Amino acid sequence: MSQEKSLLNKLVFSLQCLPGVGRKSAQRMAYHLLDKDREGALRLANDLKSAMDEIGNCERCRDYTEASLCEICRNEKRNEQTLCVVESPADVAAIESTGSYTGKYFVLMGNLSPLDGIGPDEIGLNQLKTLVEQTDCQEIIVATSATVEGEATAHFISTIVQGVKDKQVSVSRLAQGVPIGGELEYLDSSTLALSLANRQSI
Amino acid sequence: MSQEKSLLNKLVFSLQCLPGVGRKSAQRMAYHLLDKDREGALRLANDLKSAMDEIGNCERCRDYTEASLCEICRNEKRNEQTLCVVESPADVAAIESTGSYTGKYFVLMGNLSPLDGIGPDEIGLNQLKTLVEQTDCQEIIVATSATVEGEATAHFISTIVQGVKDKQVSVSRLAQGVPIGGELEYLDSSTLALSLANRQSI
Repeated sequence: MSQEKSLLNKLVFSLQCLPGVGRKSAQRMAYHLLDKDREGALRLANDLKSAMDEIGNCERCRDYTEASLCEICRNEKRNEQTLCVVESPADVAAIESTGSYTGKYFVLMGNLSPLDGIGPDEIGLNQLKTLVEQTDCQEIIVATSATVEGEATAHFISTIVQGVKDKQVSVSRLAQGVPIGGELEYLDSSTLALSLANRQSI
Repeated sequence: MSQEKSLLNKLVFSLQCLPGVGRKSAQRMAYHLLDKDREGALRLANDLKSAMDEIGNCERCRDYTEASLCEICRNEKRNEQTLCVVESPADVAAIESTGSYTGKYFVLMGNLSPLDGIGPDEIGLNQLKTLVEQTDCQEIIVATSATVEGEATAHFISTIVQGVKDKQVSVSRLAQGVPIGGELEYLDSSTLALSLANRQSI
């Protein structure tokens, strides 16, 4: 590539930090922005900078926020007695989008993974324990993924929470079974077996 | 979405100026950058800003460059007698990547499209004519796309170039036919018919 195009080359290289964007897509993005949307690109540059500089983690629930406490933690209308433990801020957004949860959250920012050096401290389990001890928390909903790591993390959290002294906290897990609109024919056999075992009377 | 997440929301919105990126991908990109690559995101912000502010068009060939003349136009080793006319800077990159062209370029930055208000002036045909008149140009290779607009533009360029006084400039078009590795079975019938009509002796 030519030396003179270095600014363009740098931009194409930098765009590849986006997930799912390779050299070819990055080139297409760079040409598109230069050609059709310089204003949008400048706004993006600005928003990227302020987001990266200012967004940190909520002191209480570890979700992303630019304040010291996120809006959900500061909202007094939300039920303090239920705490939903999720893996990532994206999961908070997913549960919020259902509009059917009014409790608070705790974001692990990952899963237990001892081989990768991610232990209870890295996913803030001490902080979670303190939170359970110091607040009026009555129920923990562990909404980690239905993967091996997610299940292991859920089990570990359940042990920790039930070990809190002088307090009876119930721990639950998201229901598993056939998704709405799911056709049995295409469902994996483990999920189907599980939904048979956990059948509900109607 | 919550008010407190406004910086994040703004970032998700701004990321959607990228081609092929919708709300869901933008959200995934924003979380990925916040979580795993803040440094890359800041570099991207910086490169976006300098590229948008500094990259303009080459005075001679209209390709993108941050200088007044692009490197190819300034390179004295490149053959001045051949001029390849392409639609976009991406096409220059594509032809350069073949390593088999040593002439210069002229970038139209679009195709003739009277219905969209894109006439000869918008794609710089006056500038092209002046270039042909004032330089030692002997051959024009019209490398516009093999689409209706591309063909129309090619025809128009050929008329203009052959109308230049006191100069005999040959005009050619990229060869059309079966691509390398192309299986006849899967080739569209128009291309196949064309490659039959233009068969070459071996």
